[in-house]
Amino acid sequence: MVDLKSYIAQQNGLVNTALEMYFQDSPHSQQLLDAMTYSLMAGGKRIRPILCLAAAEAVGGKEDDALPAACALEMIHTYSLIHDDLPAIDDDKLRRGKPTCHIAFDEATAILAGDALLTMAFQVLSALEFAEGARATQWLKVIHLISTAAGYRGMILGQVLDINSEGKQLSVRELEVMHELKTGALIEASLQSGAIIGCADNRQLELLKIYSQKIGLAFQVIDDILNVEGNPGLMGKAVGTDSLREKGTYPSILGLEKSKKFAKELIHTALQALDLFDKKADPLRAIATYIIERKR
Amino acid sequence: MVDLKSYIAQQNGLVNTALEMYFQDSPHSQQLLDAMTYSLMAGGKRIRPILCLAAAEAVGGKEDDALPAACALEMIHTYSLIHDDLPAIDDDKLRRGKPTCHIAFDEATAILAGDALLTMAFQVLSALEFAEGARATQWLKVIHLISTAAGYRGMILGQVLDINSEGKQLSVRELEVMHELKTGALIEASLQSGAIIGCADNRQLELLKIYSQKIGLAFQVIDDILNVEGNPGLMGKAVGTDSLREKGTYPSILGLEKSKKFAKELIHTALQALDLFDKKADPLRAIATYIIERKR
Repeated sequence: MVDLKSYIAQQNGLVNTALEMYFQDSPHSQQLLDAMTYSLMAGGKRIRPILCLAAAEAVGGKEDDALPAACALEMIHTYSLIHDDLPAIDDDKLRRGKPTCHIAFDEATAILAGDALLTMAFQVLSALEFAEGARATQWLKVIHLISTAAGYRGMILGQVLDINSEGKQLSVRELEVMHELKTGALIEASLQSGAIIGCADNRQLELLKIYSQKIGLAFQVIDDILNVEGNPGLMGKAVGTDSLREKGTYPSILGLEKSKKFAKELIHTALQALDLFDKKADPLRAIATYIIERKR
Repeated sequence: MVDLKSYIAQQNGLVNTALEMYFQDSPHSQQLLDAMTYSLMAGGKRIRPILCLAAAEAVGGKEDDALPAACALEMIHTYSLIHDDLPAIDDDKLRRGKPTCHIAFDEATAILAGDALLTMAFQVLSALEFAEGARATQWLKVIHLISTAAGYRGMILGQVLDINSEGKQLSVRELEVMHELKTGALIEASLQSGAIIGCADNRQLELLKIYSQKIGLAFQVIDDILNVEGNPGLMGKAVGTDSLREKGTYPSILGLEKSKKFAKELIHTALQALDLFDKKADPLRAIATYIIERKR
């Protein structure tokens, strides 16, 4: 079995080094660049990049080949957090224990830094001047996959549904759809893109889709649970905010105990989907376990 | 010579039909989609798509092949307008004679509609599942070109410089750099992407680069002139706003007459760069003339 803690630390280092490489050259606007890197390097868990790299490995590909996709996914995730935190949307002042981007800088800079990170993701995904033939087609597929997942029928639609759900009592199914879009779509795209770069076959892609859908939803259920009973010091953000905002959450609909049981079942199904993979999928197995056990 | 008016009307129709095609299927969020199409279909001049298609034609390629790039460029241009109009940035309430997106909808919807249009642009550019081999590499190049031009070293940097320039007296050179980034970069990318899809050779790409840099700057000089002496009824927006905001403009630095002379010289150089092209570049020649003669 994989030593989860050291695996995550190692993968985190890999991703952070790669991300920093993209910000090497001297900028024309220090402030814009500072705002971009402030949020990008704010100690995120790097869940999406780690899943992307682990998927490439699981299907027998090389992790390094998938690094640009891993970095791009983290840029897109970070942009979405910056924009969601804005006063006009969630109006959050704290994220990962630090002031949010528009508090640390200003609102205009936060809007533009988010735009810049989203745009940069596609620059990174297409920066493959010598990607000829089959490789070019693979990257084009990855760009299509990621932009679809992040777009108006994926992550952004999920954010709209989330905004519209405030103060409403959602059904479990409505909540599921919202999360599948808001976080699930990009998590699924993370695994699929790693797998495509790793030259996965169709069966592998299908099984990884099941794995990612289950862990994506489990991740969200645990997030809701942590918002009720998490330790704000560990999490670096306030807890209890969901119930203040009257947001539909799993604990508020199913209750805490049933929510925990539901998350466990999801992780169980996710692990089953990996049964046909060899030990190169051990990191994916370890990540599924980490999601259910995480405290922040 | 090309009949400019009917050429532009025809190309406008081509682009609008293609754009509408992307919004055919039923949406999950009518409001988000409405906000996206509200701004996208608000009667923009379609300068960037028209230049993209004209470049494909000028180098001997097929216009239709470049249509996805033309649409994506207009989506990116539109997203940048929506975000620039936001209260935290330019706080503009009127655009093309209509309320801006955050006035017609709300601020959260405008932020997300802008994000969605930017993301959709890359979905459109990569939606070429059967783009194998050399074609895939071309589209990857186009994505890299456009994302670089629109990003933190291109259009977004130009917007930051524009915000920072308010109330300052800029030199002509500083003003030029700001415009090269804010509008020039995406205009250059429009022509280069059309040319790449049209299978241009390196000499054609170089000459079109000169053409686009000159008309891009001329376009901005004329914009500044129209802000001083334009007809608000024709333009669909307020005039005189630059001097109210103490923005550096060509008329404020060079004076009106010298600004007009400068714009004419730029267009002259742009036309010279087309000397080696045959009559398939006539639309590009007509567009250069249109830029200097436009009243809105």
